[in-house]
Order: sequence, then C-alpha cells, then structure tokens
Amino acid sequence: MANITKKVSWSSRADESGLAGEATPLLNGSEQPRHSRQPSGGDGIFQIGRLSTVDLEEEITSDEESLRGRPKEIPHNEKLLSLKYESLDYDNIENQLFLEEERRMSHMSFRCLEISRWIVCGLIGFLTGLIACGIDIVVEKLAGYKYEAVKENIEKYTEAGGLSISLVLWVVLNSAYVMVGSIIVAFFEPVAAGSGIPQIKCFLNGIKIPRVVRLKTLVIKVFGVICSVAGGLAVGKEGPMIHSGAVVAAGVSQGRSTSLKRDFKIFEYFRRDTEKRDFVSAGAAAGVSAAFGAPVGGVLFSLEEGASFWNQMLTWRIFFASMISTFTLNFFLSIHHKKTGELSNPGLINFGTFDSETMAYNLYEVPLFIAMGAIGGLLGALFNFLNNCLTMFRIRYVHRPCLQVMEAMLVAAVTATVSFTMIYFCNDCQPLDKDHTEEYPLQLFCADGQYNSMATAFFNTPERSVRSLFHNQPGTYNPQTLGLFTLTYFFLACWTYGLAVSAGVFIPSLLIGAAWGRLCGILLGQLSSTGKIWADPGKYALIGAAAQLGGIVRMTLSLTVIMMEATGNVTYGFPIMLVLMTAKIVGDYFVEGLYDIHIKLQSVPFLHWEAPATSHWLTAREVMSSPVTCLNRIEKVGTIVDILSNTSTSHNGFPVVVQVTDSDEPAKLCGLILRSQLIVLLKHKVFVELARSRLTQRKLQLKDFRDAYPRFPPIQSIHVSQDERECMMDLTEFMNPTPYTVPQETSLPRVFKLFRALGLRHVVVVNDENKVVGLVTRKDLARYHMGKHGLEELQLAQT
Amino acid sequence: MANITKKVSWSSRADESGLAGEATPLLNGSEQPRHSRQPSGGDGIFQIGRLSTVDLEEEITSDEESLRGRPKEIPHNEKLLSLKYESLDYDNIENQLFLEEERRMSHMSFRCLEISRWIVCGLIGFLTGLIACGIDIVVEKLAGYKYEAVKENIEKYTEAGGLSISLVLWVVLNSAYVMVGSIIVAFFEPVAAGSGIPQIKCFLNGIKIPRVVRLKTLVIKVFGVICSVAGGLAVGKEGPMIHSGAVVAAGVSQGRSTSLKRDFKIFEYFRRDTEKRDFVSAGAAAGVSAAFGAPVGGVLFSLEEGASFWNQMLTWRIFFASMISTFTLNFFLSIHHKKTGELSNPGLINFGTFDSETMAYNLYEVPLFIAMGAIGGLLGALFNFLNNCLTMFRIRYVHRPCLQVMEAMLVAAVTATVSFTMIYFCNDCQPLDKDHTEEYPLQLFCADGQYNSMATAFFNTPERSVRSLFHNQPGTYNPQTLGLFTLTYFFLACWTYGLAVSAGVFIPSLLIGAAWGRLCGILLGQLSSTGKIWADPGKYALIGAAAQLGGIVRMTLSLTVIMMEATGNVTYGFPIMLVLMTAKIVGDYFVEGLYDIHIKLQSVPFLHWEAPATSHWLTAREVMSSPVTCLNRIEKVGTIVDILSNTSTSHNGFPVVVQVTDSDEPAKLCGLILRSQLIVLLKHKVFVELARSRLTQRKLQLKDFRDAYPRFPPIQSIHVSQDERECMMDLTEFMNPTPYTVPQETSLPRVFKLFRALGLRHVVVVNDENKVVGLVTRKDLARYHMGKHGLEELQLAQT
Repeated sequence: MANITKKVSWSSRADESGLAGEATPLLNGSEQPRHSRQPSGGDGIFQIGRLSTVDLEEEITSDEESLRGRPKEIPHNEKLLSLKYESLDYDNIENQLFLEEERRMSHMSFRCLEISRWIVCGLIGFLTGLIACGIDIVVEKLAGYKYEAVKENIEKYTEAGGLSISLVLWVVLNSAYVMVGSIIVAFFEPVAAGSGIPQIKCFLNGIKIPRVVRLKTLVIKVFGVICSVAGGLAVGKEGPMIHSGAVVAAGVSQGRSTSLKRDFKIFEYFRRDTEKRDFVSAGAAAGVSAAFGAPVGGVLFSLEEGASFWNQMLTWRIFFASMISTFTLNFFLSIHHKKTGELSNPGLINFGTFDSETMAYNLYEVPLFIAMGAIGGLLGALFNFLNNCLTMFRIRYVHRPCLQVMEAMLVAAVTATVSFTMIYFCNDCQPLDKDHTEEYPLQLFCADGQYNSMATAFFNTPERSVRSLFHNQPGTYNPQTLGLFTLTYFFLACWTYGLAVSAGVFIPSLLIGAAWGRLCGILLGQLSSTGKIWADPGKYALIGAAAQLGGIVRMTLSLTVIMMEATGNVTYGFPIMLVLMTAKIVGDYFVEGLYDIHIKLQSVPFLHWEAPATSHWLTAREVMSSPVTCLNRIEKVGTIVDILSNTSTSHNGFPVVVQVTDSDEPAKLCGLILRSQLIVLLKHKVFVELARSRLTQRKLQLKDFRDAYPRFPPIQSIHVSQDERECMMDLTEFMNPTPYTVPQETSLPRVFKLFRALGLRHVVVVNDENKVVGLVTRKDLARYHMGKHGLEELQLAQT
Repeated sequence: MANITKKVSWSSRADESGLAGEATPLLNGSEQPRHSRQPSGGDGIFQIGRLSTVDLEEEITSDEESLRGRPKEIPHNEKLLSLKYESLDYDNIENQLFLEEERRMSHMSFRCLEISRWIVCGLIGFLTGLIACGIDIVVEKLAGYKYEAVKENIEKYTEAGGLSISLVLWVVLNSAYVMVGSIIVAFFEPVAAGSGIPQIKCFLNGIKIPRVVRLKTLVIKVFGVICSVAGGLAVGKEGPMIHSGAVVAAGVSQGRSTSLKRDFKIFEYFRRDTEKRDFVSAGAAAGVSAAFGAPVGGVLFSLEEGASFWNQMLTWRIFFASMISTFTLNFFLSIHHKKTGELSNPGLINFGTFDSETMAYNLYEVPLFIAMGAIGGLLGALFNFLNNCLTMFRIRYVHRPCLQVMEAMLVAAVTATVSFTMIYFCNDCQPLDKDHTEEYPLQLFCADGQYNSMATAFFNTPERSVRSLFHNQPGTYNPQTLGLFTLTYFFLACWTYGLAVSAGVFIPSLLIGAAWGRLCGILLGQLSSTGKIWADPGKYALIGAAAQLGGIVRMTLSLTVIMMEATGNVTYGFPIMLVLMTAKIVGDYFVEGLYDIHIKLQSVPFLHWEAPATSHWLTAREVMSSPVTCLNRIEKVGTIVDILSNTSTSHNGFPVVVQVTDSDEPAKLCGLILRSQLIVLLKHKVFVELARSRLTQRKLQLKDFRDAYPRFPPIQSIHVSQDERECMMDLTEFMNPTPYTVPQETSLPRVFKLFRALGLRHVVVVNDENKVVGLVTRKDLARYHMGKHGLEELQLAQT
C-alpha cells in the first residue's frame, strides 16, 4: 500500500483520512455497490468513454499487485478521476441544531463573531508575516555562510590551482542542505513537497487534500524551503509562503491544534468547512502578500484561485490579512536591517525601485512586448511539457522516499557543478564598482578590480540575481553570458520542479525570463545604429520575466497585479497585462499551466469556473449517480452501520426519505445527512430503543459535531453491539431538511452553476413528485471536461 | 402623475417602462389581488412592522391627490420599498428553445462567441477611453476660456477698482454653463443627473433602472458633465465616466440601438440580461479605469459593486476592457499634449508622481494616519447626513424641472461669489516661481512676482487644485487659507451633490480631504520644535484625501486600489487601507455611505451581500408571496391576457403547473414563465385553436424573443380579439422547465444565498410534493434589513 500512496507526493494516506473506502479500494468490487452508476439512457446522440467492467478489473489487479509490494510500473492515465478525494462543504448544514443556535444568537453575538473574524485575520496576517520574515533571515544567513565559505575557498585556490576542491566543497555543501530538506519532506510529510500552490488551489476549489493544512506540514514546509533555497537549487521561497499562510489560517481559525492536542476553546463557531475555507483564502492571500509585497495581488490570487462567491466583507477581511502580513514582514525586516520603522520596502522578493521616468515605454515598443509575450508562452509551454513528462516519469519510477532524496541530492550536485563550470569557462569580466547589487563578487581569472559576470547570476540567491538583471547598468552582462545562463537555468529549473523538496517555481521562472528579456533588450539596443540604448535592458528584463512566468503558471489578473506591486510602479500595468495575456494565449494552445498539469496528474476532481460549453446535451439524469442509498428519517442503527461500513460506497451524503421502499421505487425526499454526522451520532450512541421505552434521544449539541471536526473517526473504530444494532436512530434533528435539489431534466451547465456558485457537495436529483432519483457530487461534474475535440469524459478510479 | 415621477431624479416614467401596474398604482386596490401577501403565521416570536390596511389607504390617498395635481408635500419614508423597479434576470431561461440552440452550437461557435466577447470588451474600452478623452479636452478648453476671460478682467479692474464687474462676469459665465447643463438633464433625461454610480450599482445588483443605459442618457450625461465642470461647480467628471462606460457597454454589446432604430444584426446572442450585465460590468470598470488611470481598481470596483459570481474569464475580460480604456485615453491625450506615444501618464485625474523616497512613511506616523481616518469618517458622516436632509428636501419641494434648473444656477452663482470673496479677502501671497503647477495665477493685491494662494484652490479646475495640494512645496499655503477653503468647499460640495446636473462627488471629496490633510501636515510640522518638516504636507494631503473620500463613499478594496494606482505608487497601499478602514468604521457608526443613502431614498430593492445575520427566524413560508398566480401548461389566451392586464399583480414570473385547481389547493410545478415571454407569445399569436383543428402552433424562434428584448411592449398595446381569447396557448416549449425551487421550511439566509449567488429573479417555493405554495422575489428578500435594533422590515409601496 505504501507504494501506492507514496507514488505521488501529495497523495492521501489511508490511515489518516478517517473515512472508510480507501484502505481497501474496490477489493470487494465483486459485490454490487449500492451507489452504482447507471449507464446513460439510450439517447444515442454522442458517445463518450465510460468506465467499463474491464477497466475496473484492471484497476483492481494493479492495486492488488502493488499491495503485494511487487515493484511494477504503476499505470497512470491522465484521463482518470480519483475517487479518493473528498469535498469540502461550503454549504452550511442548516439542520435544527444549527438553526436553534443561530436563533439563540443575538444581534450582539453576531457582531462579536464578526469582530473575532477580523481578529483571526489579523493573527493570520501577523503570523504569516513572521514566518516569511523568519524564512528570509535564516535563508540569507545560511546561504551567506555557504557563499562566503565557497568564495574564500575559490579565492584561495584560484592562484594556487586545484579549483576542483572548491567545486567539491560547493557540491557537498549544496547536497548537504538539500539532503536535509529532502529527507524531512520525503519521509515525514510528502504533502509539503513542491510549492503547495496546486494543493491550495484544490483546497480553495473545495477538495479536501489530506494533511494539507496541518501543523506538521507547516513545520516541514518551512524547514524544507530553507534547506532547498540555501542548498542552491533553482527554486524560490515564495510559493511555499502561500501554503504556509494557508496552514496558519486553518490552524489559527480553529482555535486548537489537533496535532498538539491543545484546544483553546475559542473560535468554536468557525469549526466547519465554510468558515475554514474563508480563512484559508485569507491565509493564502497573506502568503502571497508576504512573498511579493503584494497585498492586492494576494487578494486577487485568493479570489482567482478559490472564490466561488464574492462577498465584500470577506474580501475586505482577506485584504486586511494581506496588509497586516506585508506590514509585519516589513516591520521585522526593517529591524533586522537596522532601519527600524522604515516600512516602504515590501516583500520577500524585492524587485527594487523602477523609476518611472527612465523606464517609460513608448507606443512602438508595444509590438515588441507582445512578441516577447509570445516567446514567453512558447518557452513556458516547453517548460510545462518537459516537466509533465518528468513528473510522469517520477510517478512511475521515483516513488520511494529514498529514491526521491537521492534524486534531490543529484539535482543539487548537478546544479552546483553546472554553475561552477559556467562561471569557470565564462570570460565575461566586468569592472567592480561600488554600487552594484551583488554581494559575493567572484574575481576568478578576471583582472583585479573586476569580477566575473556569470557569477552574478549563478553565485547568488535567485532573488538577488533577478534584481541585478533588472537593475544593473546597461553593459553589465554580455549577450553570450545571458544566453548560456538562460539555457542552463531553464533545464535546471525544469528538472528541479517536482522534486521531493519544498520549493517554488516563481523565482526560477522570473530569473529565466529576466535573463532572456535582458538579452532581448541588449540585442534590440544593438540593432539601432545610433548607438543610443533606446531599449533599456532592465525594462526588457522585467517584461521577459513577466512573459516567462505567465507562460509557465498562466495566472492572469492576479499575476499582473503581483508584478505591478512587486515593481512598486503601476506604469507597467498595461505592458505586463499584454505580455501575460499573449503568453497565456500562446501557451494554452500547446499545453496547460504548470499547476493545472500537476493537479491533473493527481486525478483531482477539480471544478473549473463553468461547465464545458458544449455540455447542454447532458442532463442531471445522465450525470447523477443512481440509485442512491437513502436512509429513513427514523432508521435502524444496524442499517446505518452496514451502509457506512460498506467500503464500496464512496458517497458521503445520504438523502433522508420518508420511507425507503423495498423495490427500486424512489421515495420522497425529506432531508440530507452526511457520513460525518452519522459517525458522530453513532459515537455518542444517540439511539432510540426499539421498544420505545425511552423516547427521548440523548440530546446532542452542535458542540459535539464541532469537537469531532475535522477528523471524524472511521466507522471501524466505533463499536456497536448487537443490541444497539437493533435500536433506531431519529435523524430529524440532525439532517439538513432543505437540501438543494434539481429536477431530472436540468441541464448539466445549470446543475454545475448551482453547485459551483454555492460550493455544494451534494445536489439531490428529484423527480416531479420530489422523490429521490439520484445524487450529483463533485466527481459527477468534474468528469466532463473540454478536450481538443469537444466534450470528454474522465473515468473514475479508486486510486 | 408627472409630479410623482419627477420627484426623484431617476424615477421611472410610467409610459416607458412598458409594464403595467405603474400608471394606476393600487387604484383598484379594493379588488383582491391575486398575488396577495399572506400575514405570517402566528409564530409570535417577534413582531416587525407590516403594511397594514391603513397604510395602504394612506398610500392611495396621497397618490390620488398627486394625480389631481394638488401641490402637496409628498410623504417620503425611508422605510419603504418601491414595487416599481423590476429585476434583471441573471439566470438563463433554459427553455426548450434555448437548449435546442445551445445543442446546435458546435465547439467552434462557442469559441467564436468567446472571441466576440473579447472584441466587444475591446470596443467598450476603446469607446469609453475616447469619451473620457473628449470630455477631458473639451472641459479643459471651456474652463480655460472662462478662466482666461475672468483673469484678464480681474487684472484689468484690480488697479482701476470695480472688481464687482469681474465678479458679475464670473457669476454669469458659471451660471450660463450650468444652466445649459442643468436644462438638458432636468428636462430631457433626469436619470443622467448625479454621478450615476448609485444607478450603476443598482443595475449591477440586478435592478432594472429605467432608461439608465440608453444612448440618450449617455449623450446628456457627457454634455451635462462638460457643462457642470466648466461651470465651476464643486464637482468632478470622474463619476459620470463610470456611468458613460456602462452605457457604452450596454449599447455596443447589443449590436443595435433601439433609440436610433438601427440593428447591425451582430451580437444577437448577447441580447439577454445575463450577458448584458457582464458587459455593463466591463463598461463600469472601463469607466473607472479611464477616470483614474486605475485598471485594476476598475475591475475591483465592478466586482465590489456588482458581481455575485466571480468568473475568471469574465474578470479577465473586464480587466482587458479597463486596460484598453486607459491605453486609449493615454494615447489620445498624449497626441493632444503633443507628446505622441508617451503612455505613462494615465487617467483623467492625475495625482502626479509621488516619489517613494521623499514620501516614505514611518511606523510612528501610523497612529496619525488612523486619527486622520477617523476625522475623515466623521466629516464624511456629516457630509452624508447633510446631503441626506438636503435630498429629502429636494424630493419634497424641488421636483419640477424649472425649479431644479434654478437651484443649479443658484449654486453656480453662489460658488462663484463665495470663491471670489474668499480670494478677495485672502491675503496669502506666495512668490511666483516657475515650476508651480497652477495655470491661472491671480496676482490681485499681491506684490509683483507674487500670486494669491487661495486662488490656486478656487480659481482652477478641481483636478488641478488637488494636484497642487498634493505636490506644491511645503509653505505654499497658509494654514488659515486651507482651513477656510475646507470649510467653504465642504458646504459647497455638499449642496452641489444631488443637483439636477451630471456630476461626480469623487473630486470634491478628494479636494476637501486634501485641504484639511495638508492643514494637518502643516500643523504637525509646526508642533515639532526642531523646525524640520518631518510631516511632508503633500503626504498628509494624500492621506486626508483618502480619508475624506472613504468617509463619504465607504468603498473599500476598490478605493484603496484606485488611490494606489492614481498615485502611481504602491508604497501607500498600507496607510491608505488603514485610513479607509478607519473612515468606514467611524462613518458607518453614524450614517450609511452616500451612494447607499441615495439608493435607499429611491426605495430600491437593493440586495446586500448576505441576509441579515439575525434572520434565521424567518423561513421561505413567511417571506414568500402567496397565493401565486399560476398558469396551466396549456392555458387559455383570455386567462393570460386577463392576468397580464391586471394592474394589481406586480409579479413578472408565473409558475406553470400541471393543472390549476379551482380551490386554493396548490398544484404541481412544472415550469416558470416570464411576463416578457408571454407578451412575445401573445404578440406573435402563438395560439392553438380550441377546436384543435390546427394543432401546431406557429413556430417561434429565440430570435423573436431577442428582437423584442429589452423593451417588451406593454400588454395594453397587444390586441387580442374575442375569438383569440378562446384559443389556447401551449407554454411547454417556452417555459423554463427547471426553475430553482426551495422547500417551505428553508431559512431566509439560505433562500437569500441561492438568490444572490445565482442572480435570480424568482424562486418558487414548493411543498414536499413539489406543489407551488409561493414565490420569492427580490422585493420579498430586500424587505428585511438590519436596523439599529435588529431586524427591520420595510413596507412595500407602489411608488
């Protein structure tokens, strides 16, 4: 089993998800599942692939084989949709308990709640800023030690000969850092690998990625990113900040830590998916804000990636968290830099000040910008394509933690070697003046008072390299240096993304783009015969950086604003937008964005903004799962236990009906109850004895549900005696009596809109007499997507 | 009747709305209306005011009196909700015709549609930018002539004595401009008055304000704003730009002009509320973008004010329109200013370049900023309170167009007189240096080489005054000058807003705030004994401007971004946010924002983001209108005509049921049809004869509905003969067979969420057998709002 769960870095561990149906996927597949998928009625209009019995059996076989530990290539298909991911419930469970509580609350208590929401957001921002500050300082220190040591060593051996010793030192230092970072990620928390942005994107989309917002993940993430950046990998520390912010938010807002077993008995009202997701949005925004000094960009990132329903107060709170985060970071960094109180220098990455006057652009430059956007789109598509292949390879062959650590160390060693080689063979010497931005100038074979220009780019943290590409005087770099650098760094970054280390792709992308952008600027400058440098290389470096980043991640509005804020200058808004738009259009023609590729490779049931345009053919009747396992309003405990224990049913919501009929006749809907609620009810033995001697159930409070949230115990851990099995359970008080329903004839886009706009988890499909005929869940909707040749249907798989 | 409709500047004209029920409100109130409001069942838990019979009769009496033309004070109550406003339908009418069309469309046609959406957005941006450019240039020219003339005159008479002649000249010039502007607004298009932002806010909220997006409105708006700004009123040209953008969008996206009777036969797919509203969002964003050079701020404005459902592609398109708009404006202005191609100078209002280094802020300034925010909140609340009283007064007494024109001219004259007096008695002489920003320096009684400092503020377009307050050297203004200016301009601006002229409140607010902000800066500088000006007055002017504007309009995220973009500097993001937040909190404690006040005074059924927090008491059963007028699936034409002609029924959606029962028994729901659809059906005589000799109805296309959109004829204009009345009409094909429904027990917040998130117009309330028991519309939800003492219920009124 370990092989399966480890094969992808952020897959779920069966023992922790707390829900049945994962540990033994489809092992009892021979039994007719109660939630079976009815083949679509013979409308005969179009044919899309369906998961045939053969496919199912293949799945089972491969699973069983892996269970026996046989090292075999795990078949991976992009056209699969995993059933193992649960959804978040953005819809309040408006059962009687909830309504009673809401009705008891006065106007004043709602106001207090609102104030606590603001406090929580402030805390989120503060802690995220603090973490960002900590990461920044520690990375600076660690990288500083490393570069100092290597620099001294190089200087020592340059004259004496024997530079290979310096190379070895560099390689060893890098590999050591990366080894630590990789071990903690690969062995202790695989979900902390990568930038975390795809995971947060999924979370905000409403998918429960196991362990993604745990304290442990945060700790590993923070240490991991420190190690990988200090280890000289072609990575950035910005992506992980977004994940860190999200974890902070999920932790703070719950007022307790399940990992540390501490419950502060505060913010209990926020212990449900709806509130949690709002706070996680704020956390992600705070993370972006801290990373780039871009509070508005952070808000837009959260909204672009997550929000389905825009709420003014929520957005304003998110913005507050973002602002506090930037402010905290700036304040503590200003203390660290001994300029206490100077707050105008935001973000982990500081692009430096772009002066509007020298950097003004003109109309005739707009076509050039668009062309650069197209180049960025092409290069981005190439990057994504290569990374896609690499990730497929990794999923198949590099799924053991020790292999992953070794690969990470290999990359670290190669990065150091390549950098060293490039610096060694580069003869681009530049005069050393006082105001250059580089901290570790390497003289190497240059004359005294000169430094090696390639070393500015390679022998530095990526953030510094980006800044020097943006701001160094025209003439600081030779075109060859830049070309070579782009080429090598492109492949290094591509190889690095997806390693089992905690690291982001933003900064490497910016660096690649800045390098070729500057190259473009220099070449353009040389084209004009006047000798006047009309194309300021720094400006073109910025445009190139935007183009490359846009080509890789394909973010739109939020990225424009992030870039604008990071440059501290709104003048570039228009060219950056043009460039990002071109890059996206060109890139999308070939391949999806990097994050989407990684989400797809995990077979996550991700819901896009709208249903595929050509899906009006389909109606709820065709997409729903049917027949549905329904419960009676007063149901026998044994039946409930059996239903929950049945591992072949994967649904987590059960329509409650007036009377389950024996035949397959549908029964009248009267509510909806969740698996998690049933589990809590069973745990607290809320039974009515059959003899009805005690008619009153034990009174359960909303608190009991909140205490169990979010890690509801699995059904296996709840012991129900044979006597208790005969008892009855009255669900009336606990079920949601007014679930959203749609008629059978509703078109897919309409169901989709309802589902997406309200962040639902289940939509009950009823006939014209309000009788349950089916249930639509996220997976039923996510299965349909737009392919190259029209509508495609993904297959469902238990892995 | 004219009196009633004219009493508020943007009320509807009965003859144009095309829908019955307005011309003779409740005159047949004695007849039992079919849509009556059932008194809520005796839950006895809380009591909120309900429209009693007595109230109803009072309404009727006052209406009848006005009809007889008696000049009497029109009772106006803030606790009313007008029934005359219709809703927009953000939900697609997914009837058979629609689905058939969608199913016929290929993947390719959807892509073409997407491309046309982009083209439309580009056009919207381009035209909006062009209009902004035109307004800017013409205003500059006209104001230039005026100031030149007055300046020459003043200089002539300063020595000779007889400055009263100059005053008269100034007054006459101002009044003349304003008279023209006011006449066209008051007599030809009252809806073009004011900034238009409340109207656009309502439109984006889903309320159909009559004539708000017509070509005529645009023309009047543009000329009106030119006249009022050139006329020296304390107004800005920025607010109207937002309205103009929205009109452009509504026009361009429909591919025809109903006013000009031209149909270009393009973009026919976009002829429905859903698409139109999306484009209007883009138009509003383009307007903001052009006005402030703030493309991101524009997008956020649209989203903050309008969007209920955030869609990535839509947002991106809106951003595109915004960018194009700024770009167009910049490009043409750069040509006008003879610097073709220099694009880095955005927006109608240009705050000038804020240099980060000299303007950096420090931690100890943050409390000062917050205090200024509080002052802004207080002053804003005072402004809004005064303007509220004034608007009430205007609604009661100044509702005749000629009176409105006279008031506007009076204000213009007073503005000129006050300005002149202030300049005359001010002895704040400043040396005239070359690089000051003022264009029309007045020497008056100052020594040679000096100019009058008060004249910088008063004898200038407000935009220039703001800029000079932001950027002039410390020491340019005396504190007394600034204090006096703040005081007079505050009352002038307050008096001016709400006049029957087309004008915005942004710039006057900024100007007031900049004046007292600069005053604060100067006073703070004087406090410190060192003599060093640590508080740069320009910086404090900016903070003051933000505080004042925030205190008046209470916008949040979007305003922060607009200010950030207009200053061209992101460093101020944090202090501006703090200030706006403080101003909003302080201001909200006393009175609502200016736009909300004006919306409330119109009794518009505006839906806020969420249902009132304490409304969980209420269920759909209590808020719904019941019993509902239902139609049979195959209904008699006479019945339909009667129902539509019945002026006492105000609903526009009719549930279609399987069989209307004679008694009040509910019948099973099978669809929903709109009044507009029925009108089109009647117009095209889609009848089935009773004898069933021809069973096939005339085939109607979606095109027929689109051609009639949006000005559906009133039922009175459709002649149905007595024979035809006996025919039947088959609604199956035209009704929406899958309307959203809720059970009776659904809580109000849940209904609200469904309604708001999906932008619905009708939600059918059904019982547990899917039988229609009620209908919830926008008015039923907007009636409940949060008052000072908990939940309040507004009364419904026909006016």
